Amino acid sequence: MLSWVDGRPAELLSVRDRGLAYGDGLFETVAVRGGRPALLERHLARLAEGCARLGLPYDATVLRDELLAFSRQLGEGVAKLILTRGDGLRGYAPPQPAVVRRLLLGGARPAYPAEHAEQGVRLFPCATRLAEQPLLAGLKHLNRLEQVLARSEWQDDEHAEGLMQDASGRVIEGVFSNLFLLKGGVLLTPDLSRCGVAGVMRAELLAQADALGVPCEVRDIDLAELLSADEVFLCNSLYGVWPVRRLQGRDWPVGPLTRKLQAIARDLLDC
Amino acid sequence: MLSWVDGRPAELLSVRDRGLAYGDGLFETVAVRGGRPALLERHLARLAEGCARLGLPYDATVLRDELLAFSRQLGEGVAKLILTRGDGLRGYAPPQPAVVRRLLLGGARPAYPAEHAEQGVRLFPCATRLAEQPLLAGLKHLNRLEQVLARSEWQDDEHAEGLMQDASGRVIEGVFSNLFLLKGGVLLTPDLSRCGVAGVMRAELLAQADALGVPCEVRDIDLAELLSADEVFLCNSLYGVWPVRRLQGRDWPVGPLTRKLQAIARDLLDC
Repeated sequence: MLSWVDGRPAELLSVRDRGLAYGDGLFETVAVRGGRPALLERHLARLAEGCARLGLPYDATVLRDELLAFSRQLGEGVAKLILTRGDGLRGYAPPQPAVVRRLLLGGARPAYPAEHAEQGVRLFPCATRLAEQPLLAGLKHLNRLEQVLARSEWQDDEHAEGLMQDASGRVIEGVFSNLFLLKGGVLLTPDLSRCGVAGVMRAELLAQADALGVPCEVRDIDLAELLSADEVFLCNSLYGVWPVRRLQGRDWPVGPLTRKLQAIARDLLDC
Repeated sequence: MLSWVDGRPAELLSVRDRGLAYGDGLFETVAVRGGRPALLERHLARLAEGCARLGLPYDATVLRDELLAFSRQLGEGVAKLILTRGDGLRGYAPPQPAVVRRLLLGGARPAYPAEHAEQGVRLFPCATRLAEQPLLAGLKHLNRLEQVLARSEWQDDEHAEGLMQDASGRVIEGVFSNLFLLKGGVLLTPDLSRCGVAGVMRAELLAQADALGVPCEVRDIDLAELLSADEVFLCNSLYGVWPVRRLQGRDWPVGPLTRKLQAIARDLLDC
């Protein structure tokens, strides 16, 4: 399987990398279609913000050029980009100056059943709660044990995704997706300033809905409000949009706004 | 520098390791003296608990034998043991069955100034707060971005360690140490059921203090209580005990119980 370290083909990296030692880094999972990375500028923008907040040097030109070159070689599939703070000296203190290590890992396009997109998915209610850490909220960093624990909670094929709440019971996101709901004609998605990953597809769909004239709000949402929504859907940068059809005894039909945004996401990912 | 992967000399590991991708693993930092790992049984006990809580297979015999063999070869210094959930398939779901990867990294004994132990250290009050996540609290797992951020808050040599609080203001630990205080003849250390790393030296000193007939309590402690303590000290499995001599305008002399436990820790680490 195709993989690069710092721009060169490599399957291995140093055992002293701080990404391994501390999860000291960031990642992006990018759909690659026809040799092109989808939503490239949004992925780069999130990386830039993540680097700024973690104090990592960010070089847009190197990253863009490398993602483009890697995608050309991959052709179709998924490019996972990992940035780490390079090799560690002793202890948690970041080396000064930090040298960023870039990893690019190629993979096949995930083989999700077509019915997830067509008929919608059933959400597993995860018991694992997301801790509130405003300093890391929104970032796609490498500290992902909460997601590993949450995804370990179910093994059946009945549930395509899990719903994650924070410790206070607010609904936040899926394990590997962001969450939207439509209620009274307003498109809502949870505020991610305390925890959660601010997905690039989430940002894109907020912009697209706004362009369609749909009122959008980013705010706290509790479980009761989610269960009383008119439409519910999930999104991420690989599968686009999945309608949610069932959660905790509540059933939803696939709604018209969900279908409209799903079509837009499909266009973006087939770019 | 000496390093092993799965029992064999190696400087590199797979770019697809889940320790890198998600911080999906655990570590131990073990003092090695005269070819022997200090506090070996306590390190293994913590690993066993961590593996149980993360759903990782745990093989005490393999780990003990490998740590002993690695320490013999290292002679003097620090052995860092990292366990990861091996290479990733796609996504957060743990592979079934999980195959654990074992890394052992050798390093020199840290060159801390002797005055840290003799005269005590000054604590930097970190603004970075620890998030409350009971599912991960106490474990020495690989999700350590909070410690990286906290340790980035000061660069001067005046502060040897930083004090970390949780989001509610409870005092929890140092960035790479556990915290003890003596008040009214009772040895106190923060409860770590919501966040923090339950250090092996902390466990050892609690047992030693109990054996000395010192009443011990593990409970919530706020900053005011810390500042009103009679003695304050830090500990970890590499340096043993450091008295705390200053925090936020409060000065402490080095107290007699601190000295007594420091001598015990020194004996244990010079084993």
